[in-house]
Amino acid sequence: MPSATIVSAPSYVFPFRSSTSSISPTAISLTKRTWKPRIQTISFGKCVVRATVSIEKETPEAERPETFLRGVDEAQSSSSVRARFEKMIREAQDSVCSALEAADGGAQFKEDVWSRPGGGGGISRVLQDGAVWEKAGVNVSVVYGVMPPDAYRAAKGAPTDQKPGPVPFFAAGISSVLHPKNPFAPTLHFNYRYFETDAPKDAPGAPRQWWFGGGTDLTPAYIFEEDVKHFHSVQKRACDKFEPTFYPRFKKWCDDYFYIKHRGERRGLGGIFFDDLNDYDQEMLLSFATECANSVIPAYLPIVEKRKDLPFTEHQKAWQQLRRGRYVEFNLVYDRGTTFGLKTGGRIESILVSLPLTARWEYDHKPEEGSEEWKLLDACINPKEWI
Amino acid sequence: MPSATIVSAPSYVFPFRSSTSSISPTAISLTKRTWKPRIQTISFGKCVVRATVSIEKETPEAERPETFLRGVDEAQSSSSVRARFEKMIREAQDSVCSALEAADGGAQFKEDVWSRPGGGGGISRVLQDGAVWEKAGVNVSVVYGVMPPDAYRAAKGAPTDQKPGPVPFFAAGISSVLHPKNPFAPTLHFNYRYFETDAPKDAPGAPRQWWFGGGTDLTPAYIFEEDVKHFHSVQKRACDKFEPTFYPRFKKWCDDYFYIKHRGERRGLGGIFFDDLNDYDQEMLLSFATECANSVIPAYLPIVEKRKDLPFTEHQKAWQQLRRGRYVEFNLVYDRGTTFGLKTGGRIESILVSLPLTARWEYDHKPEEGSEEWKLLDACINPKEWI
Repeated sequence: MPSATIVSAPSYVFPFRSSTSSISPTAISLTKRTWKPRIQTISFGKCVVRATVSIEKETPEAERPETFLRGVDEAQSSSSVRARFEKMIREAQDSVCSALEAADGGAQFKEDVWSRPGGGGGISRVLQDGAVWEKAGVNVSVVYGVMPPDAYRAAKGAPTDQKPGPVPFFAAGISSVLHPKNPFAPTLHFNYRYFETDAPKDAPGAPRQWWFGGGTDLTPAYIFEEDVKHFHSVQKRACDKFEPTFYPRFKKWCDDYFYIKHRGERRGLGGIFFDDLNDYDQEMLLSFATECANSVIPAYLPIVEKRKDLPFTEHQKAWQQLRRGRYVEFNLVYDRGTTFGLKTGGRIESILVSLPLTARWEYDHKPEEGSEEWKLLDACINPKEWI
Repeated sequence: MPSATIVSAPSYVFPFRSSTSSISPTAISLTKRTWKPRIQTISFGKCVVRATVSIEKETPEAERPETFLRGVDEAQSSSSVRARFEKMIREAQDSVCSALEAADGGAQFKEDVWSRPGGGGGISRVLQDGAVWEKAGVNVSVVYGVMPPDAYRAAKGAPTDQKPGPVPFFAAGISSVLHPKNPFAPTLHFNYRYFETDAPKDAPGAPRQWWFGGGTDLTPAYIFEEDVKHFHSVQKRACDKFEPTFYPRFKKWCDDYFYIKHRGERRGLGGIFFDDLNDYDQEMLLSFATECANSVIPAYLPIVEKRKDLPFTEHQKAWQQLRRGRYVEFNLVYDRGTTFGLKTGGRIESILVSLPLTARWEYDHKPEEGSEEWKLLDACINPKEWI
């Protein structure tokens, strides 16, 4: 474990719950490098701590490496869950990007590859100003980091007389936001991530632990009920293959998570969202995350194909732009991954690729009651059961 | 002091420094009403505490009241600083709005008046889609609130065996953001506020206290050196009338405050900014704040008059929109008033009127070295002495 590795958690692999309700004022200094450390409130499971975190500056790479795993992980790459998860998200990135390029019919993804000296790295792919998509980002990343020992100890309820060192962790994830041009074609977001602590098996107070998180959600500016039903049906089908409680539980979790508190609205019409998932068989959850990632294109692309060429008015475009403004508000104010990434110095361009190409804020805009715009807003305020 | 009054601090009269570096885990419940209370880290002077804060829902009013001061304050309205400050900001709102309407030559401000049951209220004025300004908001507000006693006690170093109740406070402010259409005409922000604690004179551990805060700053998309020099000269002249150290000190404070950490850039080319100012004569500081507010139009309008009709390209408009994106990032992620207002439930439309009508985010946009866009970015990264 090189001493250079530090806490690092960009947007798409954010492993902690972020919160302002501290229950412990403990401040722990970790290794500093290029960046100034900043005090940060993070939570680990149910416990919140304050910790000094910082992040290494990334290095651009000319070529995609076979894997972002470090040496010891590479050696067992065919069998470990972390290796199979990395393989899965990289395959998902390839297949999603190919499908989007084919559907866009012209524009191509621009790729940036980067690594960090302490291990890990990522591939950001962005398609901008295409025929169908205004901006589409599909990122994968692998992070090796260190979390404060008190966070881990308190979360796991280990005796306080045990003093483990900082707990190394591994995180990997795929994250994507797709903003189409046509106001009748919805925005899509998906993100699947896997997290593992990396402590030696017999280290006191710091056993190995793992969990999965992620979700896929739809943000239209106008409701086509058949589209929303189709989208939720594909999510439900993916869930039902594994556990009948998943869809209802993760559908509600999604409605709760993508909530813009200061507006009293959700940013869109939901989908599924889950976090800290480790109370099922690990192999089952790996398959589940894979199934979810593979369901993105069948859930989304048929909707875009149907709507991408519909004629629209300036008024309808302006409404889409206002909803994009809400998207910006959610991502910059509430999204855990984004806010944590901005504070700790992750790769900014990768984190903020989720922001739309263009957005709009009108003072005190209220859609006319009963209008199509009003119906969308109503569904964002009062989430519905779509299937 | 009605028990209904609660901590309340919308954007433009934000009386606290907000911080995540808590030094005390104390949680204090204040009165709850319409809104769910939320845990919030606030600082009072140099001391940071956690407190449960919430805010009353505002009530729209058909007419502007003569004053937003409560009964007891109204009785002494000709003499008290709070009354004279309210009068000053309301006159400034009138004169700034008149000057802007005249310069816009067509569009008019739309006015919303509102009050809160526990006292105070505000007037929001917004001009949207004018000939010159894309969006211009000029707001005044008056807030009666209550701050946790521990915050006040710790800040003032009173003996800990004294147990004052929650400390009522009064705050009033004017806040404005003006976004022109032409990419060569700069965005302007100004905000002047006055804060007073309202405890009875002999209450143990909670003496009366007051301070001033505010500033005026310029955010162009392109640099016209003569414009920036003019703007800073007017700020310096206002400062120099009172104290020769003010301009250099508040110029640096401004550069430090409007810093977008995750970008390593300031949002614009600065101006002046100050906070918690109470180590000068109170009358002198009231005159200073008045002078600053009266300097807004002479500092800004001549620049807009010169630039508003310059021809521009699509490329230049897109660059302005990218800089507007940075403005959104600063306001939603860092601005104390905005983030506090969003979390505590202030009047959302008044708080977010600072956001531009339209904004843009391109992936990994880098202006060509030596270009006009690059020069602006360079000045945002490396603040200059303009005069």
